[in-house]
Amino acid sequence: MIRIAIIGATGYTGSELVRILIHHPDADIITITSETHTGKTFSTIHPQFLGICDQILTSADDLDDEAVDLVFLALPHRVSMEYVKKWQHKRFKIIDLSGDYRLSSADVYEEWYKTVHLTPELIHEVPYGLPELHRKDLVSAKIIANPGCYPTATALALAPLVASNCVDTRSIIIDAKSGVTGAGVKSTSTTHFSNVQDNFMAYALKSHRHTIEIEETLSKLQHSNSLASPVIVQFTPHLLPVDRGILVTCYATPNDSITDKSVQDMYESFYRDEPFVRVRKTPPQIKQVRGTNLCDVFATYDERTNRIIVMSAIDNLVKGAAGQAVQNMNIAFGLAETTGLQHIPLQP
Amino acid sequence: MIRIAIIGATGYTGSELVRILIHHPDADIITITSETHTGKTFSTIHPQFLGICDQILTSADDLDDEAVDLVFLALPHRVSMEYVKKWQHKRFKIIDLSGDYRLSSADVYEEWYKTVHLTPELIHEVPYGLPELHRKDLVSAKIIANPGCYPTATALALAPLVASNCVDTRSIIIDAKSGVTGAGVKSTSTTHFSNVQDNFMAYALKSHRHTIEIEETLSKLQHSNSLASPVIVQFTPHLLPVDRGILVTCYATPNDSITDKSVQDMYESFYRDEPFVRVRKTPPQIKQVRGTNLCDVFATYDERTNRIIVMSAIDNLVKGAAGQAVQNMNIAFGLAETTGLQHIPLQP
Amino acid sequence: MIRIAIIGATGYTGSELVRILIHHPDADIITITSETHTGKTFSTIHPQFLGICDQILTSADDLDDEAVDLVFLALPHRVSMEYVKKWQHKRFKIIDLSGDYRLSSADVYEEWYKTVHLTPELIHEVPYGLPELHRKDLVSAKIIANPGCYPTATALALAPLVASNCVDTRSIIIDAKSGVTGAGVKSTSTTHFSNVQDNFMAYALKSHRHTIEIEETLSKLQHSNSLASPVIVQFTPHLLPVDRGILVTCYATPNDSITDKSVQDMYESFYRDEPFVRVRKTPPQIKQVRGTNLCDVFATYDERTNRIIVMSAIDNLVKGAAGQAVQNMNIAFGLAETTGLQHIPLQP
Amino acid sequence: MIRIAIIGATGYTGSELVRILIHHPDADIITITSETHTGKTFSTIHPQFLGICDQILTSADDLDDEAVDLVFLALPHRVSMEYVKKWQHKRFKIIDLSGDYRLSSADVYEEWYKTVHLTPELIHEVPYGLPELHRKDLVSAKIIANPGCYPTATALALAPLVASNCVDTRSIIIDAKSGVTGAGVKSTSTTHFSNVQDNFMAYALKSHRHTIEIEETLSKLQHSNSLASPVIVQFTPHLLPVDRGILVTCYATPNDSITDKSVQDMYESFYRDEPFVRVRKTPPQIKQVRGTNLCDVFATYDERTNRIIVMSAIDNLVKGAAGQAVQNMNIAFGLAETTGLQHIPLQP
Repeated sequence: MIRIAIIGATGYTGSELVRILIHHPDADIITITSETHTGKTFSTIHPQFLGICDQILTSADDLDDEAVDLVFLALPHRVSMEYVKKWQHKRFKIIDLSGDYRLSSADVYEEWYKTVHLTPELIHEVPYGLPELHRKDLVSAKIIANPGCYPTATALALAPLVASNCVDTRSIIIDAKSGVTGAGVKSTSTTHFSNVQDNFMAYALKSHRHTIEIEETLSKLQHSNSLASPVIVQFTPHLLPVDRGILVTCYATPNDSITDKSVQDMYESFYRDEPFVRVRKTPPQIKQVRGTNLCDVFATYDERTNRIIVMSAIDNLVKGAAGQAVQNMNIAFGLAETTGLQHIPLQP
Repeated sequence: MIRIAIIGATGYTGSELVRILIHHPDADIITITSETHTGKTFSTIHPQFLGICDQILTSADDLDDEAVDLVFLALPHRVSMEYVKKWQHKRFKIIDLSGDYRLSSADVYEEWYKTVHLTPELIHEVPYGLPELHRKDLVSAKIIANPGCYPTATALALAPLVASNCVDTRSIIIDAKSGVTGAGVKSTSTTHFSNVQDNFMAYALKSHRHTIEIEETLSKLQHSNSLASPVIVQFTPHLLPVDRGILVTCYATPNDSITDKSVQDMYESFYRDEPFVRVRKTPPQIKQVRGTNLCDVFATYDERTNRIIVMSAIDNLVKGAAGQAVQNMNIAFGLAETTGLQHIPLQP
Repeated sequence: MIRIAIIGATGYTGSELVRILIHHPDADIITITSETHTGKTFSTIHPQFLGICDQILTSADDLDDEAVDLVFLALPHRVSMEYVKKWQHKRFKIIDLSGDYRLSSADVYEEWYKTVHLTPELIHEVPYGLPELHRKDLVSAKIIANPGCYPTATALALAPLVASNCVDTRSIIIDAKSGVTGAGVKSTSTTHFSNVQDNFMAYALKSHRHTIEIEETLSKLQHSNSLASPVIVQFTPHLLPVDRGILVTCYATPNDSITDKSVQDMYESFYRDEPFVRVRKTPPQIKQVRGTNLCDVFATYDERTNRIIVMSAIDNLVKGAAGQAVQNMNIAFGLAETTGLQHIPLQP
Repeated sequence: MIRIAIIGATGYTGSELVRILIHHPDADIITITSETHTGKTFSTIHPQFLGICDQILTSADDLDDEAVDLVFLALPHRVSMEYVKKWQHKRFKIIDLSGDYRLSSADVYEEWYKTVHLTPELIHEVPYGLPELHRKDLVSAKIIANPGCYPTATALALAPLVASNCVDTRSIIIDAKSGVTGAGVKSTSTTHFSNVQDNFMAYALKSHRHTIEIEETLSKLQHSNSLASPVIVQFTPHLLPVDRGILVTCYATPNDSITDKSVQDMYESFYRDEPFVRVRKTPPQIKQVRGTNLCDVFATYDERTNRIIVMSAIDNLVKGAAGQAVQNMNIAFGLAETTGLQHIPLQP
C-alpha cells in the first residue's frame, strides 16, 4: 500500500486526485492538506464527496513524513517549489503537478514564469513525467514533474512526427481549445458563467507558458534523431464553454513525400502498446475521453495542401493532470501502469 | 460470475449498463444485442468504448439461453414485454428497464400506456425494483421491473413522509426537472441542441406516465400503515439544458404539527443504513451525483407556510436506470448491494 | 427627447438599459455613471458595445441635474435609497431598479432586507411599476419602484386568478427557475461556470426576499375584491444553467368548480389588450422570450387533482428589469408603452 | 417600400430573415413560403414569433411575381437553383442564400458539390455578395449570391493581408469553429444535444465546400494586385457547443518583414469606413457579436515565429447569412447599408 499525502485540496487537481486514488487498489490517502480550510472536512469543500471522503484537512506543516511514501503537490507554481525545496531530502517521493520543474533550466523558467527559481540545481534531476515518451526515466525517480495539460495533448499528438524527423520543425501550428477547468477553481471574470456560456475566444496569445514546455518536449524528442534543430511552435489556446476537455488541432509540413496511409500507419505503430493512447480513424471528440486518462489521437495527410493534420483529445484534469500523476505514481512504484486508471468515458 | 446479456445496445440505457458492468467484479457481459446494428461492434455505435468494449452486436434471436444467467432488457416499452413473454420460462433471470411491468395491473397499464398488455397474468408476479423500499421482494425474483427515473427520485424523496403517514396524501406536488438524456438517444426536435440550450420548459403536463407509477408506489407504502387512502400527486416534468440528472422539488402539507428538526431527523433515520441515499443538510445538486448510483435527499419544514419541502437528485441514467438495474442484479444474485456501483460523482 | 442618466454601469441591469435605450426613438442617454470605473469608456467595461456606446463613465456625484429628465438607478439595494434620499426633490424623475421601494413599509423592508430604511416616509408614495397591474399609478409618478424579476413573472402568472378571487390564497406554490444573470455580474462561487454548467439546484429556500414582494403584490390585487385575506405563498427559486430567463410554475387550488377552458378564457380575457403578455396554448419556453420585454403565460386546470397550473416565462434582464423600467419610463412620460421595446426573441 | 418574399420558412435562415426584416423601415414581407407547412402560420413553425409574425405560409408556386420586388431564397443548395432557373427573367431581384451561385464556374461547382449545375451560363453574371469587398458589383445586381458563413468570417479576416499581397498565399491555415445552427434546423445525430453539449470536435476535414469558396474569394482579391498566384488554404471546421457564432483563427507567413504595429495599422486602415467591421485590440469573442451583423477582427504579428495571426468573429446566422443578405438588399435597392441592421449584441 502506497501511503499518500495530497498537498492542496481546494483546487480541481486536488479533488481529481482524490476521485482517482480513492478506488486505487494500492493507494491509501493518509493526509489531505489545505492551509485555508484546515480543520474542515474534504467534503465540506467538495460536497460531491459527502460519505465518500470526509477526511479532515490538515496543514502541510503537520505532515508526518514517516507516515507517507508519496506526496502529490497540487499547488500553484511558485508555491510548489517551496515545498520541494523543503522536502527534497525526505524519504518520500514527490510528484509535482505545477509547472515548477517542467522546463530545462532556471533561466528558461524565469523567462517564461517571470519569477526566480528557488532550486535551480534540482531542475536537471527531475524527470518530465510523460510516460509515453519518457517511461524509463520515471521508474526510479525521486521527484517527478507532472506535465501541463496542453503539452500532454500536444506532445502525444506530435511525437510520432517529430521523433521520426519527418516534419519541418518550424512549420508546426497548434490551435488548442480547452474547457474552463483549465482556468482553475477561482471565481474570476474569466470563469463567470455568463462570460463562458455561448462564448468562445482565444487567450494568452503568443505568450502562454505551455509554449516553451511544448517546444522543449518536442525538441528533446528530435534530439534522439540525427538532425537536431530546435522546434519552434505557434501555440494558440482558446477557451471552450465546457468544463473539461482539451482538443488540439496541429498542422505541420512534411519534410519528404508521404501519404495519408503512411501517416496513419506511423501513428498506429508508434502507439501500438500504449494503454492510454487510442489512435482513431476519425477526428477525436473531447466527450469521448471525459473523466478518463485516455488520449485519443487522429492523424491525416492533406495531399491538396501538402500538410499533415493531427488532433488529440484529453481530459485536462485527468490525462492532463491528476490521472497522469497517478500513472506516474504507478510507474515510480513498480505497479502496472493502468492500475486504478481504467475509468470509462462519461458520455453522454 | 454472472453471465449477462444486454438486449438493446443502441440507447443510453444500454450503453450505461455496459459502462457499469464492464468493471463489475462478478459480472461478465456475454452478449450485447441490437437488431438494427447486428454485426457491428458496440464501439462503432458508442465510440467512447473504442478499445474498452469492442464486442460484436448480435441479434436477440440468437441468444443462447444456456449461456446466460441474467438478461437486461434495455428496450422501449411494448417491445420489452414481447421478450418477457417469449423468455419467461427460460432459466435466466430478467431485469426489465422499460415501463411494461411497473404498474399494478393490465388495466392501469392500458389506461396510461394506451396499448394492450401482452402478459397481464405476469404483472402481479414481477416485483418493483426499488431496493430501498422493496429489498426483500427482490432477493428471489425471477423477473424484476426496474423503476422509472422520475419515480425513483420521487419515491425516495417522499417515502419517509408517506410511510409514516404524516402528510396529506392529496397535497403532494412534484415539480420535476430532468436532463435531456431522459428523452432518449433519438434525434428529434425535442433533443435538437438549439431547442434545449439556453432553454427551459415543462412538458407532458397532467399526462406523464410516471405520474401513475409514482402514485402507485407511494400508495403501496402507505398501505403498510393503518390509514389507507390513495395518493394522488401533481406531477410536472420540465426539461433541463443538461445531459444527465433529475432534481425533484416536492411539496406536501403535514397532517400534524411538526418541526424542521423532526422532519430532518425522520429522513436521517429512514435512510441511515442505505448505501446509496445521502441525506443532505442543504439542497442537493444534480452535478453532485453525476455518473453515480447515489440519490441525494434534503427535507425541510417551512413554518411560515406549514409545508414540507423535499428535494432529491439522481443521475437519471444510473440510479434512474442502469445503476439501479445493477443494484437489483446484486440483490437478486446475493451479492453485496454496492458491488460495482461505487462510482464517484464527476464534478466538475 | 427624454434626457437620461443611468446610475451604475457595471452590472447587467446597467448594460441592458443601454442596449435598449440606445435605439429608443425618444430617449437620449446623457450620462452613464460608475464609481469604480470613472473615466473609462462604457465599452471598456462591456466590450460588446465597442463602436456602439463609447461614452465615458462619470461619477454620480457629478450629475448635472438640470441636464436630465430621468434617472435610472441600476444599483444594489441599500445603495439605491441613498441616491433617492439625496435626489428626491430634484426635478428629474427616478426609476429605481433595486428592491428599496417595492415593499409596503419600512418595517416589512427591514424584516426581509435586514437593514434600516433611510426614507421610510417615501415608501408609500412610490408606486410599484408593474404596468399590467398598476398602469394608472405610474402616469404621473415622480419615483417608480421597478419590480423584481421573480415577482414580475409570478404576479403576471397569478394576477388573473387572484384578482378574480378564484383560488385559495393559502394554496399557492411557486416553483421558480432563473438563469444565472439573476445572480449578478459579480464573480462568485455561485456564478463560476463549473458550478453552474450541467448543474441545477434550489437556493434561498424559505427566505428569498422576493417572497414578500410577491405576497404583497398579490394581496393588493385581491383587496380590490370583496373577500380580503393575505396571500401567503410558497416560493422556491432554482438556478438554471442558462444566462437569461425565468420560468415559474405555479400551483393553486380553485375555490369553486372550474374547467380547463374557463381558466384559459379568463387569461385570454385578462391580457387581451396587453402588448407584452402573450397567452399561450402550450407551456412557455424561456428561449421564446429571450432578449425581449415579453411575458409568455399559460394556464391550465387539472381535473384529476383539482389544481390550476400556471406558467410564465420572461427574460429576467428585460421584462424582469431593464425592459420593464423602460416600459415604466414610456408610461411616466406619456409615450406609447411599446416604444423602443419591440425586440424579437433571439431564438435560436 | 421593398416588397419581399421569403422562400423557405422552416430553416434558421428563414426565421432570421423574418426577425431582421420585420423591423426594417423600408421592407414589407409580403409572402413567406414553405412547401411542407403550407397553410400554417409562421409562428406555428417558429413559436417565438407568436403575435409578431403570424403570416400564413404559402406555396412558392403561388408567388405573385408582380407583388414583390425582391425574393430571398432560404433554401438548400440544389433546390435553390431550380427557383433561380425558373424566376431568372422575372422583374424582381433575387438574393440566394444557398451555395449555388458562389463559385466561379459550373465545373468547380460540380467538383465540390457533386451535382450538376442547372444554369451554368448564369454563374458568371451573379456577383458574390460580400459588400466589404465587392460593394460596387452589387448596386445594380439582379441576382446576388449571398456568401457562406465561414467564407464571410475568413475573407474579412484575411482580405487586408491578401489584397496587399503581403502573405505567402500557400501558407494560410484557417482553424474555424462554428456553433450548431450552422448544421441547420434538422434533427440529426450531429445536432442531438447530448452529442454537442460538453463536446468539441472537428468535422468535414479536408473536404468542406467552403474551402473552395474561401480560396476563390481570396484569389480574386489578390488578382487585383500584380503578382497573381492562386490562394490554397488549409481549412478545418470544428463544432462548438453553442447555438450561434463563428470564430476563425487564421495563420499566415508574411512575405516581407513587418511589425505587430504595421499589421494592426493595416487592418485599422482597411476597415476604417466599414460600418459592420470592428477592428479590435484584443481577440474577438463570439458573444460580443451575437445577434448582430457585426464582424469583429483582430490581427497580430508574432515575431518569435514570424507568423501573422488573425481572428474574426461573426454571428453565422446574421453576418454569415440573413443579416448579410439584408445588407445586400440595402445596397441593391440604394438604401443606407446599415438600415434595419443596427442590432446590439446580446450579451450576456
